[in-house]
Amino acid sequence: MGSTIGDIGEFGLIARVTAKFPQTENVIIGPGDDAAVVRAADGRVVATTDLLVEGRHFRRDWSSARDVGHKAAAQNLADVAAMGARPTALLVGLAAPPDLPTAWTDELSEGLSAECALAGAAVVGGDVVRADTVTLAITALGDLGGRAAVRRDGARPGDLVAVNGTLGRSAAGLALLRAGADGPAECLAAHRRPRPPYPEGPRAADLGATAMLDVSDGLVQDLGHVAAASGVAIALREEALPADPVLEEAVRVLAGLGAAPPRAAAFMLAGGEDHAMAAAFPAGTRLPAGWTEIGAVTEGDGVTVDGAVPPRGGWDHFG
Amino acid sequence: MGSTIGDIGEFGLIARVTAKFPQTENVIIGPGDDAAVVRAADGRVVATTDLLVEGRHFRRDWSSARDVGHKAAAQNLADVAAMGARPTALLVGLAAPPDLPTAWTDELSEGLSAECALAGAAVVGGDVVRADTVTLAITALGDLGGRAAVRRDGARPGDLVAVNGTLGRSAAGLALLRAGADGPAECLAAHRRPRPPYPEGPRAADLGATAMLDVSDGLVQDLGHVAAASGVAIALREEALPADPVLEEAVRVLAGLGAAPPRAAAFMLAGGEDHAMAAAFPAGTRLPAGWTEIGAVTEGDGVTVDGAVPPRGGWDHFG
Repeated sequence: MGSTIGDIGEFGLIARVTAKFPQTENVIIGPGDDAAVVRAADGRVVATTDLLVEGRHFRRDWSSARDVGHKAAAQNLADVAAMGARPTALLVGLAAPPDLPTAWTDELSEGLSAECALAGAAVVGGDVVRADTVTLAITALGDLGGRAAVRRDGARPGDLVAVNGTLGRSAAGLALLRAGADGPAECLAAHRRPRPPYPEGPRAADLGATAMLDVSDGLVQDLGHVAAASGVAIALREEALPADPVLEEAVRVLAGLGAAPPRAAAFMLAGGEDHAMAAAFPAGTRLPAGWTEIGAVTEGDGVTVDGAVPPRGGWDHFG
Repeated sequence: MGSTIGDIGEFGLIARVTAKFPQTENVIIGPGDDAAVVRAADGRVVATTDLLVEGRHFRRDWSSARDVGHKAAAQNLADVAAMGARPTALLVGLAAPPDLPTAWTDELSEGLSAECALAGAAVVGGDVVRADTVTLAITALGDLGGRAAVRRDGARPGDLVAVNGTLGRSAAGLALLRAGADGPAECLAAHRRPRPPYPEGPRAADLGATAMLDVSDGLVQDLGHVAAASGVAIALREEALPADPVLEEAVRVLAGLGAAPPRAAAFMLAGGEDHAMAAAFPAGTRLPAGWTEIGAVTEGDGVTVDGAVPPRGGWDHFG
C-alpha cells in the first residue's frame, strides 16, 4: 500500500527526500532555506544545467528510479569534470504528477545521492512542482582548485586527441533495450547508469589538456564542437579506438535479433551518453593509464575518421 | 512567416538565444562550453533552483514570453537576494515542443536577460530539450560579498518583523485575470512580472537581519517557515501592513465583477509571488525607507494576525 507524492504534499516530499542527501564539508547551508551556500574556495565556481524528460531521456519501464537518479546526476557532474573541476554540489528540480509513488522519489533521491558520492558532491537544494510528465532539472557546481578551466577552444594543430572512459556502450544498450534483448548486461547498465571517469577531468587539466569535453552527443559530433571552437581539424584513426569486447558482443546479439546493428566502431564514434572524457593534449604528453590516444589535431576544419568525413550521427534535440 | 525552434534545431536555438545574453565582469566563461565559470570572490556561492511549468506557473495567453522570462528569473534572483547576496548568474533549462515559435524564445530570452540586468546578473548557460509542455528550469547564483548568509532559523523573541516590496498584488492580478478584468494594470503587471527589491536583501543583511526570506507562497505561510525554523512565534498586526490603494482598487473591481474577493489585507497575508523581502531584525533596528514594520517575534510557535491564527492559505504544489 504505497503512498504517492500527492498524499504527502510538497513539504512532506521535500522533507522526505532531503533526509536522503548527506552533506559534505563543502556545504555551508544545505537544503531548506531560500538558497544553498556552497564553498567555492577557488574564487570561481563551475556551473552547468541539464533537463531530463520522461519518455525522451528515460523511460520508467526501462530504468529504475535509482538509475534515473544516477544518470541525471552523472551527466551534469561529468560536465563539471570536463572543465577540469571537482564537483561540489547538485541542485535538483523535479516536476511530477501527484500520483507518482513516493517509492519512486525515494529511489530517485538515493540514486542522485549515490552518484554525487562517487563524484564527491552533495545535493544541496532543489524544487518540486506538479506537472503531467516527470521532468528533472539538474544543476551541478564544481571547484577548479586553482586550475585553469579547460575549454573547447584551445586545441592546436599537432596536439594529440585522447579519450578516457567507455564509448558506444550506452547507445548499444539503448539499441538492445529497443530490440528486447537482456544483455550484454554491461551495455544495458551503461545506458541506465553511465560511469563518467570524474577524476580524469581534473587530471587531464593538470596534464595540460588544451581542450576537453565529455562525450554526451557522440564522439564525432562532440569533437566537432572542439574543432569548430578551436578553428582546427581533428583526424581520428578507427583502429586506435579502444577495443571493447562487450560492445562486439552487443553487436552480435543485435544481429542475432535481426536488428541490423552498425559496427562496434560506429557505436563508439556516434553513440552518446557514456560521458567519457575526450581531450586534446600537447604532442608528446605522457598519458596515464586509462587514456587512449585516438587521433590528432591538424590544420583545417571538421572531424575525419581515417581521412573520411563520417556519416552524420549524434543527437539534435529538435532535429 | 515565423520560424519555430524545430526549424532551426537545438544548436541553432542555442546560438540564437545566447546572442541575447550580455555577460558581466563576473562571468569568466559564459555559454557554449560544458559548463560556465563564474566569479565567486567571496569563496562561497549562493545557489537556488526553480521549475516553472506552462499551465501551472504561467499561461502563454495571459503572459507574454518576455513576462515569463522576467518572472522566471525574478523568482530565483529573489531567493539569492533573500540570503543577503547579490545575484551573479543564471542558468536556464528550456523544455519545449518543436512547434514553439522562435519569436517566443527570442522574447523569453530578452525577458530573462532584462531581469538579470535589473539584479546585476548574467545568463551564463543552459540546456534545451524537447517536451510536450513548455517548462523552464532556472538556477540562480549569487555572491555574499563577505556577509554572513541570512537564514530562516535566526529569528529571536523580541525581534521586529518587517517587509520591503509589494504584497498581494500578484495574487490579486491572478484573480483579476481569472475574472477577465483588464485592470488595475499594476496588479496584472505584478502577476506577470514581479519586481523583487533585490538590493534590499544585502542591505537587510548589513542591517543585522536575523532571518529573511522572499515571499513566494504567501506572507503568513512563508513567515511560518521562519517561525518553525527559528523555534519562535511571529505576531503580525494587520493595521501595520503597508496601505496599498492599488490593491484596494483591485478588490473593488473584483467585487464589481461578482468575484467575491477577499479583503485587500487577505491578499497581502496569503498571496504569494510578489517576492517582497520579509525579515526579522533586532528590536530597535532603524529601518531604512521602503521597509515597513509589520509585527514582532515572540516566544511560542506559528504565525498570528492580531492574535488569531489566520485561515490556511498559501500554496502546496501537490495539495
